[in-house]
Amino acid sequence: MHSGTQITQGLRLAMGDSPAWTVEAVRQARYHVVSSDHLFTRDNTTLLTGCPDAPLRSGERRLLVVDENVDTLYGAQIREFFDFHDIRATVLTLRADETVKQWDAVCEVVDAMNDFGIDRRREPVMAIGGGVLTDIVGFAASIYRRGTPYIRIPTTLIGLVDAGVGVKTGVNYSTGKNRLGTYAPATATFLDRSFLRSLDLRHISNGLAEILKMALIRSEKLFDLLESHGPAVRADRFQGTNGDLARAADAIIAESIHLMLEELQPNLWESSLERCVDYGHTFSPTVEMHALPELLHGEAVVIDMALTTALSTLRGDVSEAQADRIFSVIRALGLPLWNAVLDDTSLLEHALQDTVRHRDGQQRLPLPLGIGRHRFVNDVTPAELREAARLLHGRAADLSPAASDEELVSV
Amino acid sequence: MHSGTQITQGLRLAMGDSPAWTVEAVRQARYHVVSSDHLFTRDNTTLLTGCPDAPLRSGERRLLVVDENVDTLYGAQIREFFDFHDIRATVLTLRADETVKQWDAVCEVVDAMNDFGIDRRREPVMAIGGGVLTDIVGFAASIYRRGTPYIRIPTTLIGLVDAGVGVKTGVNYSTGKNRLGTYAPATATFLDRSFLRSLDLRHISNGLAEILKMALIRSEKLFDLLESHGPAVRADRFQGTNGDLARAADAIIAESIHLMLEELQPNLWESSLERCVDYGHTFSPTVEMHALPELLHGEAVVIDMALTTALSTLRGDVSEAQADRIFSVIRALGLPLWNAVLDDTSLLEHALQDTVRHRDGQQRLPLPLGIGRHRFVNDVTPAELREAARLLHGRAADLSPAASDEELVSV
Ligand SMILES: NC(=O)c1ccc[n+]([C@@H]2O[C@H](COP(=O)([O-])OP(=O)(O)OC[C@H]3O[C@@H](n4cnc5c(N)ncnc54)[C@H](O)[C@@H]3O)[C@@H](O)[C@H]2O)c1
Ligand SMILES: NC(=O)c1ccc[n+]([C@@H]2O[C@H](COP(=O)([O-])OP(=O)(O)OC[C@H]3O[C@@H](n4cnc5c(N)ncnc54)[C@H](O)[C@@H]3O)[C@@H](O)[C@H]2O)c1
Repeated sequence: MHSGTQITQGLRLAMGDSPAWTVEAVRQARYHVVSSDHLFTRDNTTLLTGCPDAPLRSGERRLLVVDENVDTLYGAQIREFFDFHDIRATVLTLRADETVKQWDAVCEVVDAMNDFGIDRRREPVMAIGGGVLTDIVGFAASIYRRGTPYIRIPTTLIGLVDAGVGVKTGVNYSTGKNRLGTYAPATATFLDRSFLRSLDLRHISNGLAEILKMALIRSEKLFDLLESHGPAVRADRFQGTNGDLARAADAIIAESIHLMLEELQPNLWESSLERCVDYGHTFSPTVEMHALPELLHGEAVVIDMALTTALSTLRGDVSEAQADRIFSVIRALGLPLWNAVLDDTSLLEHALQDTVRHRDGQQRLPLPLGIGRHRFVNDVTPAELREAARLLHGRAADLSPAASDEELVSV
Repeated sequence: MHSGTQITQGLRLAMGDSPAWTVEAVRQARYHVVSSDHLFTRDNTTLLTGCPDAPLRSGERRLLVVDENVDTLYGAQIREFFDFHDIRATVLTLRADETVKQWDAVCEVVDAMNDFGIDRRREPVMAIGGGVLTDIVGFAASIYRRGTPYIRIPTTLIGLVDAGVGVKTGVNYSTGKNRLGTYAPATATFLDRSFLRSLDLRHISNGLAEILKMALIRSEKLFDLLESHGPAVRADRFQGTNGDLARAADAIIAESIHLMLEELQPNLWESSLERCVDYGHTFSPTVEMHALPELLHGEAVVIDMALTTALSTLRGDVSEAQADRIFSVIRALGLPLWNAVLDDTSLLEHALQDTVRHRDGQQRLPLPLGIGRHRFVNDVTPAELREAARLLHGRAADLSPAASDEELVSV
């Protein structure tokens, strides 16, 4: 609940010419995010007892929905784990990429729930996969009998630090990204970074973009971590191959999630439109759409952040030295600073107008203040945007691509 | 929120071997039910100013979704009303009966919202029709961009006293009735009983069944009203042709809604499984399904109520005189006491088992105590059910069908 609002409950009847009633009630939401490495090794009991609201006991059964690629890589181990603990697992393997993030996929999950004859009080559906998979399963569960509990086990970095820890579900509809969906927290999310060992580096970078977002607006400490350890942790795919890398990987993920949850908790249903977690998401939808399928989501977000960093430099809110550090970190994390769609600055103006429409008539644009802080502004002008784009273009050309950029092309 | 539960909010972090977070938040729900006759006559401004949370101003525009049959009867008047008040109304006419209460209908509404380019902060969708229409539109709105406000204008008696005043939305999926849906209150429901003038008597009776339900479990006063004025109000289709009929129609509707809202408000999301508004809904799904398409929902509900009244008579909770009054009122309202599917008493046992499965292992069966009160029991036996069915069968045969039963057949 947003600060300043008051909670009211009850039934009021006003008898005028005709009766009128007002019904008020409050609904409690609670969810858990529990981290544990190697969830599916036999002696790890986190899945069984790690969440008080979702106990899993021998003799029970569960419906699992697993991303096709994850099933190929980890399916045997996952089945073995459930067998070992005497839990009957029924597995629906689902192709889950952005192109099939549609209603049909929701139906596949619903059909599986019907066939399974799910007991919605005792048998949460378990979703194992990237953000696409958990968004689909979350949506299906949230509308099945008006709400059936589900559990998320994200297997991508985006899943671990973003899609897996919030309350949004959804699928695309015609041209609308996540046009249909719900706010429906998973009872529990279990985080296991060991899944990242098989993720390609481009998707690691994609997740790092959202982590960098949290750093830029909320935490210089997290930025420092990314600057000092980000490239190595990335190359190590967060596996913690030595003690130093393990500590850095854990710290980067935990810090990013903690900041994210601090921002989400007071505004879980997005009643406030001033969301600093929207940083990087003002121009990125336009960039992403026009550059499709070239850019991943995080890549578009990082270009937006680079542009708004340039904007803040022009305003004197971010120093040139700070901007240079930011641009260098972006590069070092294998992320782009520029995309050709920015050449057409009229696109940026349209993106800004679109934002104003979705934010109830105001820009409410989070802009960085130095590194780790932000403020909201409503007065960005098209001329200023063009100027920022020009500045960024120059800096992007100066900064030679990091070695890791090869993967950007090869993936 | 159910009494006894406590509201908690905040973010908790537990640092064990690995971090674990608990996120807690509460969401405020508020909705309005506003009654006013002849909503669409020019000088009635209830739709414009009657709900504080949903003002409608000249110069604005709205998307209306209207039941096809309602559009035929009232479409011209509705459009004229909006024109007169300088509100641009875009109308989607939707076929809305139980057979098309499916995902495809939701898509029609979503497409219309896309085409309209709805501003989800300012332009609630307006749903005008029976329970099927408002359930479909409510579902579509609730998942569009994770929740777009909507307004209901029910045009059937079921809509006025039941579907239009709660928070449930949904559509059927394969064999599952309302298998997919959400809990999503309409910002406002506007009740106008003048729509009932064109409703066939069988659907009037159908709604009266749900009103009788509220009377039997909650209010002897409402039962008395139904007994003394029900048949005349029914024949008058709640139009209030004279002062007496008007007062009775208003009182019956208002009393029924008030009792319903008193039951819903503390348990809006059905976290408690002891819901007395489920009275009549234990055996009716089975009866309805097996007698399809012969019986309407309310007709199946009333047969369930007759059966459980007989059961309570056997238990001494309802006297024979009271049971006789109840059976007579059912008849006088043009409703059935018996259906041939009850001949197979094994069906009833299965229905009971099904209920136990959906009520988390217990019967939680609301049973009448006299007229106007109830209690929950968990000990109904198959033998007792057979006995009750035998008793009811006898009484049903004794009671000659009311004159109004002709319509039961002719519709
Ligand atoms: N709900 C939210 O709050 C939220 C937040 C951010 C993003 N999202 C959504 O998340 C989606 C993006 O998620 P994503 O980045 O995880 O993409 P994704 O789910 O498409 O996964 C990326 C690719 O990696 C594969 N994969 C998954 N785990 C793997 C593993 N361990 N090893 C190897 N391959 C693996 C997948 O099969 C897929 O091909 C978008 O649809 C976005 O809308 C939702
Ligand atoms: N959401 C809830 O809490 C809730 C509660 C009860 C019932 N329901 C749902 O409501 C549905 C039943 O609703 P219903 O009984 O209103 O049926 P309905 O919506 O099918 O309407 C009955 C018929 O009357 C027609 N009609 C509607 N208004 C009319 C008017 N003023 N004049 C003439 N004809 C008119 C309709 O076109 C339809 O043919 C079921 O699908 C049930 O699941 C929902």
